[in-house]
Amino acid sequence: MAQIGKQSLKFEHAPCILAAASVVGTKEGEGPLGKLFDMVGADDKFGEDTWEEAESALQKQAATLAIGKAECKPQDIRYIFGGDLLGQSIATTFGLASFQIPLFGLYGACSTAGESIMLAAMAVAAGYGDQVLAVTSSHFASAEKQFRFPLEYANQRPLSATWTVTGSGAFVIGSGKGKAKVAGATPGRIVDYGIKDSQNMGAAMAPAACDTIYQHLTDFGRKPEDYDRIVTGDLGYVGQEILIKLLREKGVDIQKQHMDCGIEIYDRASQDTHSGGSGCGCSAVTLASYLLPRIEQGEYKRILFVPTGALLSTVSFNEGHPVPGIAHGVVLEQA
Amino acid sequence: MAQIGKQSLKFEHAPCILAAASVVGTKEGEGPLGKLFDMVGADDKFGEDTWEEAESALQKQAATLAIGKAECKPQDIRYIFGGDLLGQSIATTFGLASFQIPLFGLYGACSTAGESIMLAAMAVAAGYGDQVLAVTSSHFASAEKQFRFPLEYANQRPLSATWTVTGSGAFVIGSGKGKAKVAGATPGRIVDYGIKDSQNMGAAMAPAACDTIYQHLTDFGRKPEDYDRIVTGDLGYVGQEILIKLLREKGVDIQKQHMDCGIEIYDRASQDTHSGGSGCGCSAVTLASYLLPRIEQGEYKRILFVPTGALLSTVSFNEGHPVPGIAHGVVLEQA
Repeated sequence: MAQIGKQSLKFEHAPCILAAASVVGTKEGEGPLGKLFDMVGADDKFGEDTWEEAESALQKQAATLAIGKAECKPQDIRYIFGGDLLGQSIATTFGLASFQIPLFGLYGACSTAGESIMLAAMAVAAGYGDQVLAVTSSHFASAEKQFRFPLEYANQRPLSATWTVTGSGAFVIGSGKGKAKVAGATPGRIVDYGIKDSQNMGAAMAPAACDTIYQHLTDFGRKPEDYDRIVTGDLGYVGQEILIKLLREKGVDIQKQHMDCGIEIYDRASQDTHSGGSGCGCSAVTLASYLLPRIEQGEYKRILFVPTGALLSTVSFNEGHPVPGIAHGVVLEQA
Repeated sequence: MAQIGKQSLKFEHAPCILAAASVVGTKEGEGPLGKLFDMVGADDKFGEDTWEEAESALQKQAATLAIGKAECKPQDIRYIFGGDLLGQSIATTFGLASFQIPLFGLYGACSTAGESIMLAAMAVAAGYGDQVLAVTSSHFASAEKQFRFPLEYANQRPLSATWTVTGSGAFVIGSGKGKAKVAGATPGRIVDYGIKDSQNMGAAMAPAACDTIYQHLTDFGRKPEDYDRIVTGDLGYVGQEILIKLLREKGVDIQKQHMDCGIEIYDRASQDTHSGGSGCGCSAVTLASYLLPRIEQGEYKRILFVPTGALLSTVSFNEGHPVPGIAHGVVLEQA
């Protein structure tokens, strides 16, 4: 039985991430992780005419590369679990159509990176596929257009704002030996703290990250020390402070283990990204390029990877709704 | 091993649909299936201020009712698989947040009804949950605003257009005995025939339905006669004709078995819905109210339920992209 505790899963025969790929834009290429990414675009249009097409191109490249690294062909991939931030997930539709692989389309805002890996692992562990692909993407320009203002408007960004990562991370998950085991998962619930500032996603998502991490530790009967790192997706500096405080109020201190992909991906002093990076691509490319190699080399024996999502659209926001959060936790262990 | 053929799954211990609920708007209540729905709203706002909130209310009611019919409490439902048509799936976010159940957010356009039932059944069959909820919704007014024109604009609708169903269908899927077995599934691929008419969704989706049905029959080694009905989601009259023709070209004749939820749900002569009904809610409420009781009573021993989705956003459409389709097939058998 894979069920553990109230809302988690522990895989008896844990699937592995067989291969991972990261493709990013220019700003990410200039950041602290720049040299670790598989591909950095020459410019952020990736040879396309529109920002949305650029994001599709990014996703297609990442998926292609991951399939290649796994020494597979597209026909060896039984299913894809994929998604992005755009309305009706168009980056995914037009990015993945040509592979001709059955697709489970997902939407969990920036938490989709965790949702896709989790569902892919659940499918493999149940024997539904020998190799399954999880892929997500985000693009700074398509996201600004979707959620905030067109770039041409040149709006000022408050210091609480994060910078949407231009990037796509793709993961081939299978039953063979690979870079890391997907040992367990804690799918998250929607948590609504009533945050109404759409330029402060860190504050909107931190309560959801707290809920998922706390429930995960409870379900597995573990402490923060049982993890080398507890890695959130894109809380940024603002959200990190809130998360650590909220968990302390519940008697859990993750200060020593906590890492946030949104903090790691840009240089705060020189890149003017304010609270940090965000987007489905943020946690996905950081996992593919930075975290996975450390697990593979044994520097991390076990991490909890918790992509965080802010659930809003311009419609819900303009109709006065708050921005609830959701966070999905994935346990990754040395294979 | 659950894998069968190139892209299908056959469950050794098939999960069951334990309970189902349908909640619809006034027009659906006046249609041929009107008396079969569990609840018909007094008006299409469902007591809310906006169309989006109305759709959330619809989804919450359907989920509540299905959980109650299954004689469960929300805390007995381990996971929800849910989605809708709106950008960033806001109907689902604000409809399901209060249940406090871990959520896998999905997007497959109108095929989401199939995707959610399929993934819920996969989760139950693998032992990931004893009771899992699949829920989807659509609302005529929120969909028109999202994809076409505000209702106040009073645009003319071409005869090829379908009418988005105001409705939500929810299904509790579990390992116990229920109304119908989810015996197998054929997750679909994106199929792009280059259709660029956003007012002709039937033509955009029919090739995807053809692809999934053909692959399903191939994977399972079956013929159309092995099914009492092959039920597509929302092709309407225009799409039905194309689907039957496309399958005949491949040597498969489903004329006798074919049924389309979009054709069943409205009265063509009196309801002015042109090609028929559409939306995630269309196939979901038709399954819950009309098809499932027929399976339970033994009138249908086995059906193939194939919700169909048109993958577009106003952005992709206005940037000149075609409308690809996707269709997910679910085998439902007498329990």
